[in-house]
Amino acid sequence: MTSKDWAVPETEVLDGVREAIDGASESVLVTVVRVEGSAYRRPGAKMLFTGDESVGHVTAGCLESEFERVASEVRTSGKPRVERYDLSADGDDVWGLGIGCNGVVDLLFEFVDESHRPLVDAYESGDDVGVVTVLDAADESAVGARAYYHPEREEFETDDSYPSETLRPLRDAVVESTRHGQSETFELGEATVFVDGVSAPPNLVVVGSGHDVDPVVELGAKAGFRVSVVAYRGASSITDRLPESVTVHTTSPGAVREAVDFDRETYVVVASHNFVDDRLTVETLVGTPVPYVGVMGPKKRYEQMLDALEDEGVRLEPSERERLYTPVGLNLGGGSPYQIALSIVSEVLAVRNGREPGHLAERAEPIHDRVEL
Amino acid sequence: MTSKDWAVPETEVLDGVREAIDGASESVLVTVVRVEGSAYRRPGAKMLFTGDESVGHVTAGCLESEFERVASEVRTSGKPRVERYDLSADGDDVWGLGIGCNGVVDLLFEFVDESHRPLVDAYESGDDVGVVTVLDAADESAVGARAYYHPEREEFETDDSYPSETLRPLRDAVVESTRHGQSETFELGEATVFVDGVSAPPNLVVVGSGHDVDPVVELGAKAGFRVSVVAYRGASSITDRLPESVTVHTTSPGAVREAVDFDRETYVVVASHNFVDDRLTVETLVGTPVPYVGVMGPKKRYEQMLDALEDEGVRLEPSERERLYTPVGLNLGGGSPYQIALSIVSEVLAVRNGREPGHLAERAEPIHDRVEL
Repeated sequence: MTSKDWAVPETEVLDGVREAIDGASESVLVTVVRVEGSAYRRPGAKMLFTGDESVGHVTAGCLESEFERVASEVRTSGKPRVERYDLSADGDDVWGLGIGCNGVVDLLFEFVDESHRPLVDAYESGDDVGVVTVLDAADESAVGARAYYHPEREEFETDDSYPSETLRPLRDAVVESTRHGQSETFELGEATVFVDGVSAPPNLVVVGSGHDVDPVVELGAKAGFRVSVVAYRGASSITDRLPESVTVHTTSPGAVREAVDFDRETYVVVASHNFVDDRLTVETLVGTPVPYVGVMGPKKRYEQMLDALEDEGVRLEPSERERLYTPVGLNLGGGSPYQIALSIVSEVLAVRNGREPGHLAERAEPIHDRVEL
Repeated sequence: MTSKDWAVPETEVLDGVREAIDGASESVLVTVVRVEGSAYRRPGAKMLFTGDESVGHVTAGCLESEFERVASEVRTSGKPRVERYDLSADGDDVWGLGIGCNGVVDLLFEFVDESHRPLVDAYESGDDVGVVTVLDAADESAVGARAYYHPEREEFETDDSYPSETLRPLRDAVVESTRHGQSETFELGEATVFVDGVSAPPNLVVVGSGHDVDPVVELGAKAGFRVSVVAYRGASSITDRLPESVTVHTTSPGAVREAVDFDRETYVVVASHNFVDDRLTVETLVGTPVPYVGVMGPKKRYEQMLDALEDEGVRLEPSERERLYTPVGLNLGGGSPYQIALSIVSEVLAVRNGREPGHLAERAEPIHDRVEL
């Protein structure tokens, strides 16, 4: 079995679920529903078995041939199953006497079908969603029954097959889990129910169409962002270069807010390399709640931009200026396209996670900035 | 023409030169030898035209069809040429009214052959090398003649075709340019000579064979490191997963210094997930001049490691402890394999370039660390 897509972000696993629903494959979704001890992944972690391949991972690489076997059975039967695994029993412990294969995990195996559509629709719309799945019940036919919670409209979505008596006591837990992107299994006496708060990925919007955009898009996607590009010019060449999963919006600075929803979970890198286009873009973004606008180019260019905005009577509040980052990226040194992309995507990730991006290790004193080798 | 490999690091361009020398292709190497104004790339920047494809870039994407045309002619004639381009004349300015296509550049076009071997041999051995090329001379047949300087043995290497009267006045300049990795064209009256200080890439050695190693290897290579892996266990599985360009050393902690040259340009990430193997590795590395040892795992595990080393009578000097980084990586938040790899490779790049890895933009106040979303 090929597991070359072991390390992919969750976005790719859910893209695979979408493709399976649309009939491109017969796939089995595997979700961690419970963990005892210190396992590599937490409840909610997902992987997808599609034919001979797998996407994502639910362990550190332990027992995967075993999971493949069960996934095959589920693909044939179409019936969901929960299986418990003691990972330290991995005789094929690829990490040696390591800490990689530890703990006990319960995995839910489900054949992917139309009933998963609300999950992928929400995810792709950028909406969080709560997924409630019956793992065990007195009435065996209820196993695998699923309900959804949509926080943006505060609505539960179920069908007749879902045993409502298992939902009522969990309403508050579902709302909370969805809000915090947390996942947990609840024992309700006669039923066991898994509540999975699936958070939509944050968005990375890169404004520009030059070759230097490509590595930013690539690393942003690998870092777990849903990435899109806004091309004011040169749209066809960048569209040809990027994978289909990346949306390219062809528009103008004045119309960009109609093309893209610039919300609190959207991070923007402005890199059109056209002074006027960049300035108009910054002016537009300042009126939105985006928490991060990285403006590529030298500091002097940015200052000229602020001057030009002031000449138009646009004066930025301190809170607005705090959201603008120029020079863009972290101070890593290096000027190659990938090194720049690394510094930008690292910065966006740190801001998104509310982190101050220094060394995790305690340092006795900072490394004094010297001329880069 | 496919230029999907526009953004690749220099290591890949030189790998392409190696393949051309070994007969896999007929290729033309293009090098920036002079720049006027603010061009996107500096002297020494290289790209390679191989058949219908190109690897690397010498401009922001300007005039590339023009370069392809000249490369074709050079591939046919075998004769080197220098051509001057005013990049602002790019009618096909893919970046619009941008700052991308600016300046005037002189490009050297050379058919790749055996005479380029000293360049790739040095590069792959991890040795810096100075490449001296005659761009223009009274005797036209001297155009393209090349000499090499090997700093590790303080030796110049020439053959009879190289006009030695052009080398003597440049000896000091060649030594200095090679030391600083700088490139410049010198006018010597009757000859014009390009001196190219080509610095060997820094090395990233990742110790481990789990799936979490793969994204670190991938991002490290994209960031311009020559990456290799040390596998104490599970070597065959990681060898199968990684590209051939990544050397996998199968060895033991006690013998790792025989397999790998741990020098001042080698950066190590210790991630075997085996406590004893990691501890033995750290103990070994402390006796080498490597400037960076990132130890994966919780801080507590690292402290247990230091205790275990002390029990063996190994006490680390402060200067040695300063080279150890645990927890490894920058504080970006995020725990997915690619997010961890991003934080590690960013940290290594910052240390390599002597940078303190905060935001490049001035911030009014640090973002207060809050619980990651």
